[in-house]
Amino acid sequence: MPPITNARVLFASVPKDFPVPGETTVHDTAQQIDLASVALHGGFLVKTLVLSIDPYMRGKMRAPGTTSYSPPYTLGAPLTGYGVGVVLRSEHADVAPGRYVYGAEMSHQEYVVLPGMRGLTFLEKDAQLPWTVFVGAAGMPGRTAYMGWMEFAHAKKGETAFVTAGAGPVGSLVIQMAKHDGLKVIASAGSDEKVAFLTALGADVAFNYKTTDTRAVLAREGPVDIYWDNVGGEVLEAALDNAAVYARFLECGMISGYNTGHQGIKNLYQTYAKSLTLSGILVLRLQATHEAAFWATVPRLLREGKLQYREEVSTGLAAVGDAILRVQRGMNTGKAVVVVAEE
Amino acid sequence: MPPITNARVLFASVPKDFPVPGETTVHDTAQQIDLASVALHGGFLVKTLVLSIDPYMRGKMRAPGTTSYSPPYTLGAPLTGYGVGVVLRSEHADVAPGRYVYGAEMSHQEYVVLPGMRGLTFLEKDAQLPWTVFVGAAGMPGRTAYMGWMEFAHAKKGETAFVTAGAGPVGSLVIQMAKHDGLKVIASAGSDEKVAFLTALGADVAFNYKTTDTRAVLAREGPVDIYWDNVGGEVLEAALDNAAVYARFLECGMISGYNTGHQGIKNLYQTYAKSLTLSGILVLRLQATHEAAFWATVPRLLREGKLQYREEVSTGLAAVGDAILRVQRGMNTGKAVVVVAEE
Repeated sequence: MPPITNARVLFASVPKDFPVPGETTVHDTAQQIDLASVALHGGFLVKTLVLSIDPYMRGKMRAPGTTSYSPPYTLGAPLTGYGVGVVLRSEHADVAPGRYVYGAEMSHQEYVVLPGMRGLTFLEKDAQLPWTVFVGAAGMPGRTAYMGWMEFAHAKKGETAFVTAGAGPVGSLVIQMAKHDGLKVIASAGSDEKVAFLTALGADVAFNYKTTDTRAVLAREGPVDIYWDNVGGEVLEAALDNAAVYARFLECGMISGYNTGHQGIKNLYQTYAKSLTLSGILVLRLQATHEAAFWATVPRLLREGKLQYREEVSTGLAAVGDAILRVQRGMNTGKAVVVVAEE
Repeated sequence: MPPITNARVLFASVPKDFPVPGETTVHDTAQQIDLASVALHGGFLVKTLVLSIDPYMRGKMRAPGTTSYSPPYTLGAPLTGYGVGVVLRSEHADVAPGRYVYGAEMSHQEYVVLPGMRGLTFLEKDAQLPWTVFVGAAGMPGRTAYMGWMEFAHAKKGETAFVTAGAGPVGSLVIQMAKHDGLKVIASAGSDEKVAFLTALGADVAFNYKTTDTRAVLAREGPVDIYWDNVGGEVLEAALDNAAVYARFLECGMISGYNTGHQGIKNLYQTYAKSLTLSGILVLRLQATHEAAFWATVPRLLREGKLQYREEVSTGLAAVGDAILRVQRGMNTGKAVVVVAEE
């Protein structure tokens, strides 16, 4: 078999603010691979099927030397992210060809030789759910929503929840869990089309934060007992000012600051004025407690159509740069996924 | 008996930044009272013995119309605060002359007629502890430290705690509780004399934040598992950047912003990066759970000398204005108390 192109997406330069497709990330087709003869060195060859495009990736597009919960991408090397692949060939005793693997640091390239299962888990093919769902509602974002809610929401029927980025893969599940728990749900998103989706998910109050004043909505519809924060910034300030006594703030993300810098939060005195609790959510640290319950619950509800989700699917690695930018700008309608190849 | 002066401290104007004794508060001697004949209307006459000067009082020195956990002072009326008084005369069936009363809204005046025990509790005279202690280490600040720590610290032996305003009535008890629980304690205060007190309390690392860089200390001596925050602002930012994974932040006060405005906190993303929990402490909301344990523990430890405390005692209502300013500027060495009268 002759060598074929092994396309990759490389981290090419640190963005000044928003990522620039073709400049901060580059779709590279220079590498060749011979699938039949590439050396495995005791490992196995994986064909990438789907890759997830998530907000946190912007945080890894930074210069080396600044520490965070996740290491930076390496300049000149492929991006990494959540993904699913299928094993084509193997020299590894535990990994048979035809098996599917899932991991948080799948390389953004069409084919990759991996040394072992470290950082990977096997997935079984689901007759009803496509692989894209396993990086979305049944993947990291779904786990984040489910595990964060179970661990920190302490939801009581009749309370009021506020969910930002409500049309995203995390927020859309949070809205549905909050409604399942009998809460009044206020949800926001950045377009009227997304707001219609929030309403379809069951949100009692849905609004476009670009055209409607968040403070006015919370003052009218609050106070807020549970705030699921995906955005930070002035919306977090508005939620603090409109929080109920004993409210729980679930700090999941602050995308308002990822590209242009974080705005300072000036009213944290509300934490003691209102006896608030703010809890940071990082899914990797919740899995030990909640993984079994997640698997027993969420995929089944997705199959039965009792949990709704939306995806924005692009095709081919060349789409990665645009997909990253759309997520950072909030232009994606549904979970951003790139289908790299069919099986 | 001829009428005598009933001196009062009145809220005279809203401070622009720091309070100005004689301007924002005024010591007023215009009112007269005849102790023998003043009408009680079924209530009782109290002679004020001690009044507490606390940081939160600045928050009440605001214009009407802005809501907070505590209502503003009324312009032209006396200040209120924690205090202890003795009953001189009574028409109230439950309140005998000679009894001692304690309350959070004792009026800043020498004598006051009260209608009933609403907002007050009786205190028994303690042979070993002066009344000043009952507005300090055995009063609201002591309760704040004890109850906040019991509820939110989740201290584990060998962990590291960081305590700001460590020489104050709350911080000094927190340091001692943290040492009792087997923690390494980093503590800061605003003068070398206070730093010596921190060391005497058992702090492992004590520093003057005005002459030593907080970030450098935390980077060297951290990471911090428990941060007791009395100050907010850039010190809170430094603590967030130097927090350990799963650290607990006990948000008790933010005095850095009370007079000149709150600085924005730009690194709250550390909440999810490090799985932090921030809990706001307001003692009034913790008393239902912890009051019995507090009474069973803290006064005894104070009598036995196993809990140390310091007081800065002023004499006479005319000292209130200066005492308030000294607390806001961090100039007080120990719990600020005004002894209004001896029994």
